[in-house]
Amino acid sequence: MSDLLPAGTIKQVTVIGDSETGKDACQLAEEIGASLALSGYAVITGGGGGIMEAVSKGAAEAGGLTIGILPGTSKYQANCYCKLVIPTGMGHARNALTALAGDAVVAIGGGAGTLSEICFGWIYQKPIFVFENFGGWSKNLAGKPLDHRLEAVIVKCESVDDLMVKLREAFED
Amino acid sequence: MSDLLPAGTIKQVTVIGDSETGKDACQLAEEIGASLALSGYAVITGGGGGIMEAVSKGAAEAGGLTIGILPGTSKYQANCYCKLVIPTGMGHARNALTALAGDAVVAIGGGAGTLSEICFGWIYQKPIFVFENFGGWSKNLAGKPLDHRLEAVIVKCESVDDLMVKLREAFED
Amino acid sequence: MSDLLPAGTIKQVTVIGDSETGKDACQLAEEIGASLALSGYAVITGGGGGIMEAVSKGAAEAGGLTIGILPGTSKYQANCYCKLVIPTGMGHARNALTALAGDAVVAIGGGAGTLSEICFGWIYQKPIFVFENFGGWSKNLAGKPLDHRLEAVIVKCESVDDLMVKLREAFED
Amino acid sequence: MSDLLPAGTIKQVTVIGDSETGKDACQLAEEIGASLALSGYAVITGGGGGIMEAVSKGAAEAGGLTIGILPGTSKYQANCYCKLVIPTGMGHARNALTALAGDAVVAIGGGAGTLSEICFGWIYQKPIFVFENFGGWSKNLAGKPLDHRLEAVIVKCESVDDLMVKLREAFED
Repeated sequence: MSDLLPAGTIKQVTVIGDSETGKDACQLAEEIGASLALSGYAVITGGGGGIMEAVSKGAAEAGGLTIGILPGTSKYQANCYCKLVIPTGMGHARNALTALAGDAVVAIGGGAGTLSEICFGWIYQKPIFVFENFGGWSKNLAGKPLDHRLEAVIVKCESVDDLMVKLREAFED
Repeated sequence: MSDLLPAGTIKQVTVIGDSETGKDACQLAEEIGASLALSGYAVITGGGGGIMEAVSKGAAEAGGLTIGILPGTSKYQANCYCKLVIPTGMGHARNALTALAGDAVVAIGGGAGTLSEICFGWIYQKPIFVFENFGGWSKNLAGKPLDHRLEAVIVKCESVDDLMVKLREAFED
Repeated sequence: MSDLLPAGTIKQVTVIGDSETGKDACQLAEEIGASLALSGYAVITGGGGGIMEAVSKGAAEAGGLTIGILPGTSKYQANCYCKLVIPTGMGHARNALTALAGDAVVAIGGGAGTLSEICFGWIYQKPIFVFENFGGWSKNLAGKPLDHRLEAVIVKCESVDDLMVKLREAFED
Repeated sequence: MSDLLPAGTIKQVTVIGDSETGKDACQLAEEIGASLALSGYAVITGGGGGIMEAVSKGAAEAGGLTIGILPGTSKYQANCYCKLVIPTGMGHARNALTALAGDAVVAIGGGAGTLSEICFGWIYQKPIFVFENFGGWSKNLAGKPLDHRLEAVIVKCESVDDLMVKLREAFED
C-alpha cells in the first residue's frame, strides 16, 4: 500500500518518573504528553500512576497514542489513559523494556525505578532528556554522563518547548 | 476527559503463526488482519515475517493499529506494517509477552514457536482460536484442551467471519 | 588454577513436569534425580512442587547440585531441595530460562507449562528426553519432532538407565 | 532427609562491577571472592569479564560455588570460573535477575550496567555494599540512599574483612 511507511516511522518517546508525585510535576507531565502527541509521537510509559498517568492523560486528551508497558499480568492495572497495554508479567525487569521501547527517553524527578530506566536508556544508547524542576535522579544527572563509555550526556531541558526542539534534533540525526 | 474510556477498552488480538509460509496462508492472514482492524481491534504480533507480516499488512491497510513485539533490540527488525514496535531484547522469551498482550490469541499453522505462544495463551487463560487450513499445531490442537486444568478448549474457526463472531462472543463474557 | 575447568564443564540437566502429580511419577523423578547427581550432572528445575520437588530431592539426597529457577521473587518459594535458587520475578516467562539453562531437557508427564518448556528446549536445539509412563505431553510427543525445522525428534526413554546412556551419548557429540 | 536444610540456606551473594577494569580492582575482587567462598556463600555474577571474572576466580579457587547469569544464550560465553551457568537470552534485562539472585549485593567501581543492578538491588530491598577504591557508581553512592522510599543506605566497606562482618550482620537480621 503506497501510503504505508516503514516500521519505526512513528517515533516513540518513553516518559518516566515517580509513580507518586505532586500536582506541579503532574502538570508538567501533562503538558509534555500533550506536546508529544501534537508532534505525532507515540507516548510509552510504565502504565502506572503519578508521572506515568499524567503524561498519558496529556497525550491521550490531545488525541495521541499511549502505550503502557506493565510489570503485572493484567491490563486492568494500567492507568485509564493507556490506549494500548502490554502487560509483561516480568515485574521490575520490565523497566528494561520501557526504556528500550522509546526512540528517546524523557525523565521527570525519579527514584530507583526511574534511575534503572535511565540506565537502560543509556545502555541502549537512547538520547535521554531530563527536567530538573522536581529533583530526584533527573536533577542529579542533568548535564552529566552516566559512565565514560559514550561521549553522550543526559540532556537538561529548560521547558517543554526546549524538549520538543531537542527531540526533533535528536530524531533528525 | 469525558470521552476517554478506561484502559483495556480497545481489545487487542494476538495473531501467531509461521515466520515463513505460503501464499495461501498469507492471504488468509491478511483477511484476518483486515477484519480485526475493521472491528476496531488492535493487532499484536511478534513483528516478524510470514503470518506476522501478512496479518499486520491486512490490518494496517484497513487503517488498524498494529503492534510488533520483537525478540531483538532494534525496531528496524520489525516488518513494515507494524505501526508501533516494542523491541524486547529478550529473545524467544518474548513469546510469553506476545501471548499475554492479547485479549485473545489467533493461530494459523505453526511450529514450535507458535506452540510456545499457544501454551502461554492457555496458561494466561486467554481464549484461543485456530485455523486448521494450513496444518501445524493449529490443526493438531483444534477442538482440544492443552491440559486438564481448565475446562476450555482451543477453538476451531471455519472462516474469518466465524472467527469474528467467536471473538465478539468471547469479549462479551 | 590448574584444576579449574572451563565454564560449561559441569553438565546441567533440566527436568520438567507437573507441579502436582502422583506418587509413582514422583518415585520415578526421584530416581532420575539420584542418577543425574551420581553422574555428576547439576539438576535444574523450575523450583516448584511435584516433579520439580521429587527430582531435586533425589539429586540433593545423592549429594548433587540442584538449582531452582523460580517464577516469583522470593527464594523461599522454592522447594526445600534446591541448594541454589534463582528467583526471576518474570512469572511464566521464566519457562524459557529453565529450558535454556539445561544442556539437555528431560520431561515426565506434563501440561501446558511443561509443553512450553519443551518448545523452548526445541527452539534452543537442546536434546529432549521424555518418559511416557505418566501420560501428558511427554507421552504425546515421544519419538516425534515438534516441527520440521530440525531433523531431531523428542527421544523416548524406556528407563532411568536408558536415559543415562542417552544423555551420555548426547553430551559426547 | 534429616540433613537437608530448607531452600535458601546457602546464602547467595551477587558481586557486580565493570567488565573491563584494572589489575588492582581485580585483585580486590579476587580477595572478595575467596572470602565469600570461605564463608560458605555462593557467588553470583553476570558471568562476564573484569570484576565478574576476578571474583569468580577467587571464589572458585577457594572451592566455592560460582554461578554466572548471562545476557546471551550460550553458556560458553561465561568466564571459565563459573561452575554453573544460567544463560538467559534476555540481554541487559538480565541485570534485574543478577541483583534479585543475591541475598546481598556487593559492588566495586561500576558504570551504567552496574548502576542498573544497584537499582534492582535497592528495589528488591537487598542489603547493598560498595567499595569506594575504584571510583564509579560504588564511590558515588557510598553511604547514601538511592531514594527516600526506604530508610536504608548503600553501605560503604573499608576492607574485605569489613564486608564479611557486615554481611554476617545483615544475614543475621
